[in-house]
Amino acid sequence: MGLFSSFSFATNKRVGLSLLATACFTAAACSSAPEPNSSVAAKATVTEAAPFAIAIHGGAGTITRASMTPARERAYREKLAEAIAAGQQILAAGGTSMDAVIAAVQVLEDSPLFNAGRGAVYTWDEQHELDAAIMDGSNRAAGAVTGVKTIKSPIALARKVMEESVHVMLSGAGAEEFADLHQLERVDNSYFNTEARFDALQRMKQQLGSQDKTAWQQLDARFKYGTVGAVALDTHGNLAAATSTGGMTGKRYGRIGDSPVIGAGTWADNGSCAVSATGHGEYFIKYQVAADICARVTYQGKDIVSAGDTVIHEVLMPVGGTGGVIIVDGQGKVHMPFNTEGMYRASQQGDGPVHIAIYADEN
Amino acid sequence: MGLFSSFSFATNKRVGLSLLATACFTAAACSSAPEPNSSVAAKATVTEAAPFAIAIHGGAGTITRASMTPARERAYREKLAEAIAAGQQILAAGGTSMDAVIAAVQVLEDSPLFNAGRGAVYTWDEQHELDAAIMDGSNRAAGAVTGVKTIKSPIALARKVMEESVHVMLSGAGAEEFADLHQLERVDNSYFNTEARFDALQRMKQQLGSQDKTAWQQLDARFKYGTVGAVALDTHGNLAAATSTGGMTGKRYGRIGDSPVIGAGTWADNGSCAVSATGHGEYFIKYQVAADICARVTYQGKDIVSAGDTVIHEVLMPVGGTGGVIIVDGQGKVHMPFNTEGMYRASQQGDGPVHIAIYADEN
Repeated sequence: MGLFSSFSFATNKRVGLSLLATACFTAAACSSAPEPNSSVAAKATVTEAAPFAIAIHGGAGTITRASMTPARERAYREKLAEAIAAGQQILAAGGTSMDAVIAAVQVLEDSPLFNAGRGAVYTWDEQHELDAAIMDGSNRAAGAVTGVKTIKSPIALARKVMEESVHVMLSGAGAEEFADLHQLERVDNSYFNTEARFDALQRMKQQLGSQDKTAWQQLDARFKYGTVGAVALDTHGNLAAATSTGGMTGKRYGRIGDSPVIGAGTWADNGSCAVSATGHGEYFIKYQVAADICARVTYQGKDIVSAGDTVIHEVLMPVGGTGGVIIVDGQGKVHMPFNTEGMYRASQQGDGPVHIAIYADEN
Repeated sequence: MGLFSSFSFATNKRVGLSLLATACFTAAACSSAPEPNSSVAAKATVTEAAPFAIAIHGGAGTITRASMTPARERAYREKLAEAIAAGQQILAAGGTSMDAVIAAVQVLEDSPLFNAGRGAVYTWDEQHELDAAIMDGSNRAAGAVTGVKTIKSPIALARKVMEESVHVMLSGAGAEEFADLHQLERVDNSYFNTEARFDALQRMKQQLGSQDKTAWQQLDARFKYGTVGAVALDTHGNLAAATSTGGMTGKRYGRIGDSPVIGAGTWADNGSCAVSATGHGEYFIKYQVAADICARVTYQGKDIVSAGDTVIHEVLMPVGGTGGVIIVDGQGKVHMPFNTEGMYRASQQGDGPVHIAIYADEN
């Protein structure tokens, strides 16, 4: 069990209650965490609306209170709240999980705070190469792009690949040519420049010294992480997952991480769950993290809490695979396990309270 | 169940017997298919050597006797035999499954008969973009390359990525830069030119007419397929899988298929099985075919025959996901299910007979 194995936060223990109606919107949530207020719980039996839920992440890694200023922490929390709201409003209005995850991810892509879109990290060659993937749990439709340099919203392009191409995964200049066919917004690569990320690359190069493989592996975790993602269940019972990233600081040789690899960083299947991952991508590919969590739900009958905790803490942690995932299932249960000091994350079930957290000891 | 669901060939029913010693080299093979010759079976108890096995494929698709000449069929069978021998010799001498799958795949890469290396198909732009992946079942180490244009043996580069980089997946020009660091042989893209593949591209463009998505999906299956791969179990008990391909004829926009996607076209895990896939790659990504077969073995306790048949015939076939896989497990059992008219394939268990087949009705 990993460092934070004792931290097992399940939002189903914090059932969201709106004043209007859906006091308890999933049977699973009710049975696992009965509300102390029995008069509220009683109301739930009157009208049981279809459950819906959304969860987002903005990267996992060495995120500690010591490394944070109050202003910076507030900025993160506000942006996470804005992203959740963008997705939740769509779900509450009966929109699709696909539209909701796109809306949430685009808020994070547009913010320089996160390593995706606007705030993407720098490659070794001081460029930005962005990856993204999306998957529709209702039909296994999927789209992914990798190594795009001029696409303002990589997640929007991933969706176009899913909907408008015969392929699942497009790369590099070819993917950008495809984007032009579909009038997606292109920007100069310098659009993604931020001083903070540039400084991080310089520090990383200093820390690395020679280009020795071992040195790279021992790099401070903060250079490896940061990715944004969203998972959602809509009122139609459909799951969706979306992930967008600038990858790993100082990545070279056209490196592709786990985010655009369907099954590794992104997975959705109505029969089990939807997952978006963030962490040291190479491990997430080798252990097929997103698909493996859902496989344990499907084949072992585990719930997402058990399946997610096992993979993050018992499979990944012992081999050094640091990071985390957000998971939502078909009943609207949300679980967000990670094995790092922190993970920017937020979730909302139905019209319930918005849960926003950064550090491991928050729940 | 698909067209060929009644065809369920398991080589474990044809236990290989050498004259010298290892009459029955896997307990599983013996128990599931007792040899009628009891005196031979008795010898097996004298010396039970560690099992080893190898299986290869050279692509699945519309491969019928009507479309084949005797000379062409002979050429395919001879090359498959050569590839099996290259890998089997390594295993028989106590070598690693990793070395064996590389040796087998390189024979197929070097042949213009198969859609990998030398005989790679053409992209829409009349270039060649090659993908490959390799995975070590003993430790989940993995390497993959995509969109390389000048690497003579993409599978050799995939192995270098696995062994010498901190990344799992490298792409395009970056991957070629990495290849130079490790002195891998580069060739001009025209090295991969063959008249047969060029003609296929022209026929495909004619058949496609406009670039309509629907038309592309209805393309004759022979333009979609062809990939080579190998899976092996060595005498040390380690599994490995390798896949190499030129992708889909007329592919565009930097399309990446399933072959280099760990979990989709290539997967190896000592705890379950090793798989290499060939077929309509987009489906193999969306259904995580290679990893899903192994997940069914791990989590459902299925054997590779049941797990492989279910995924190929019951999961993929109904949604139009045509193709096949080769599978080997930790006892040296081999299974090679496919749902197309044919799949170039071969296998050998221990020092037993070499099984070579092309059409669906061969077993």
